[in-house]
Amino acid sequence: MDASVVIGIDVGGTSTKLALVDAEGRILGRSSFDTQARRGGSNFVAAICETAEALFATVSATHSLLGIGIGTPSCDEVNGTITGAANMPFSETVPLRQLIEDHFNLPTQLVKDANSSALGEMQYGGAKGMSNFILLTLGTGLGSGLVINGRTISGVHGLASELGHISADRNGRYCNCGQRGCLETYVSAPGIKRTVFELMANHTQPSVLRDASFNSMTAADITAAAKAGDAIAQEAFRITGDILGYKIADMVLHLDPQAIFLAGGLAQAGDLILMPANESLKKNLMVMFQNKVTIQLSALGSEDAALLGAASLIWNLQPSVSKTNP
Amino acid sequence: MDASVVIGIDVGGTSTKLALVDAEGRILGRSSFDTQARRGGSNFVAAICETAEALFATVSATHSLLGIGIGTPSCDEVNGTITGAANMPFSETVPLRQLIEDHFNLPTQLVKDANSSALGEMQYGGAKGMSNFILLTLGTGLGSGLVINGRTISGVHGLASELGHISADRNGRYCNCGQRGCLETYVSAPGIKRTVFELMANHTQPSVLRDASFNSMTAADITAAAKAGDAIAQEAFRITGDILGYKIADMVLHLDPQAIFLAGGLAQAGDLILMPANESLKKNLMVMFQNKVTIQLSALGSEDAALLGAASLIWNLQPSVSKTNP
Repeated sequence: MDASVVIGIDVGGTSTKLALVDAEGRILGRSSFDTQARRGGSNFVAAICETAEALFATVSATHSLLGIGIGTPSCDEVNGTITGAANMPFSETVPLRQLIEDHFNLPTQLVKDANSSALGEMQYGGAKGMSNFILLTLGTGLGSGLVINGRTISGVHGLASELGHISADRNGRYCNCGQRGCLETYVSAPGIKRTVFELMANHTQPSVLRDASFNSMTAADITAAAKAGDAIAQEAFRITGDILGYKIADMVLHLDPQAIFLAGGLAQAGDLILMPANESLKKNLMVMFQNKVTIQLSALGSEDAALLGAASLIWNLQPSVSKTNP
Repeated sequence: MDASVVIGIDVGGTSTKLALVDAEGRILGRSSFDTQARRGGSNFVAAICETAEALFATVSATHSLLGIGIGTPSCDEVNGTITGAANMPFSETVPLRQLIEDHFNLPTQLVKDANSSALGEMQYGGAKGMSNFILLTLGTGLGSGLVINGRTISGVHGLASELGHISADRNGRYCNCGQRGCLETYVSAPGIKRTVFELMANHTQPSVLRDASFNSMTAADITAAAKAGDAIAQEAFRITGDILGYKIADMVLHLDPQAIFLAGGLAQAGDLILMPANESLKKNLMVMFQNKVTIQLSALGSEDAALLGAASLIWNLQPSVSKTNP
């Protein structure tokens, strides 16, 4: 046995994905389970342990396991806990890091999902060599990871970087969080759908999107319509990018980053979101920051970024591995 | 000679202040010069050197000089340069750190003025023992220093923390920077005056402020009127605090700090600005951050915070001095 491997885990509301990752960031094997199928915190933890063991068994003859890195929503990075939420199969607070560490007797690390994606981007993606950048994941919500001086930041309570809920419009759309006008009510898969419905209400142009219900329409439908020339869909992307660029200007004034990366389902629309976002950033950005920062697409698939970033938490504990940003 | 001293310098558009600071943060002597009296970069640097030398001469029989720490607007912390601006007596970029270091042959450090105030607050003021906080100076503009994990952050180009120009209203007031709706067009000494003028235009209540011209009215006049019960002045403070709390909610979502400190002339209004700001923060803050962070007044006079913070840059280089946040 002369090779080592790490298990990276990406916890999601729908499915929890696991991957065997080697020191070069190659994925040697994958597995997953239905997050919702195992109700209750201890069932959920047992599902992680079983799936991880079965996955490692596929390479255990030739590899040793160094540890487990986990990226998850709703976690407290400081205490290593995960708090149950509407989209999780449990409602209590679970000391996930400790439970996994005790089960495997191996180093276990826990970070917010958007932070694991940011670490993956830095270690293996478009942020290689950067030490100050922001990664935004545009999916069901808007997740964010802030890297400052080569490290993700946690804040005092492990709550830093909740950029989905910064305010795009004080009197704007209602958000699940209880506030109004949060950025993710505009810039996310449901957010752009809300914009499409607003446009269909205000305008008279025909659109293929007028045949879909609110519940059935997906961001992929809107992307396909925009690519096929649908005016409502194209305008929805322009508005979404415009709001995104406007709020990224604020982020830049906080942190002076080198770049902002977009990942997640909505980022797969590529230039449809990227071009209006960069145009709006340029328009809204203070003159001293002009031409110093751009919005870019993540160079990794979102899923792989999160898995690789979670694994990198363990690889970066190894003294023999040179870190991208020491 | 058995005692050491550091010179802290606070460069301002009107006057440049210097202080002799000992290891305990005591100010042993002060001096200053009229920033505008010495036109041109080399004249300005010569004024710093002469004033510093004369100040140190008052204690040189009993103290040795360890170095010079400088807080200044418009500086590039990475390269140690200061760039001339409208309110400075020169227009070129001056390599201030290197010139002072060469002149005195002593360690010289240069930080943005709001960062020196933040460092002073952390070393000797209300942020003692904190490692994650934000300091906002409400004066002619709105300056900001962000402390993360015990250190001020500079960003990639030394431009981080320009929170005076984050957007409070995309279609709002015109700002000197060329954008519209920047926070400092509302929350600063000129900002609250603009609000008073808007209120005097929209409402009919009598006010002592109706006897002053735009050019003659000061923030201190507005504070005095509010304390005397003037309805227009009180409403101006309520609006100013409301906008401040709204944008601080965004800052909290970026960084999850322990506290936000207010310094500068407008902060001397005390509860007049603090109470509506905290009320607005509570109203606009996502539920998971509630009761975890408050806005507080700086525990140091703004001038002293900047001088002490600038001096702390040098004291923190000394191995014998224990840092607040190692």
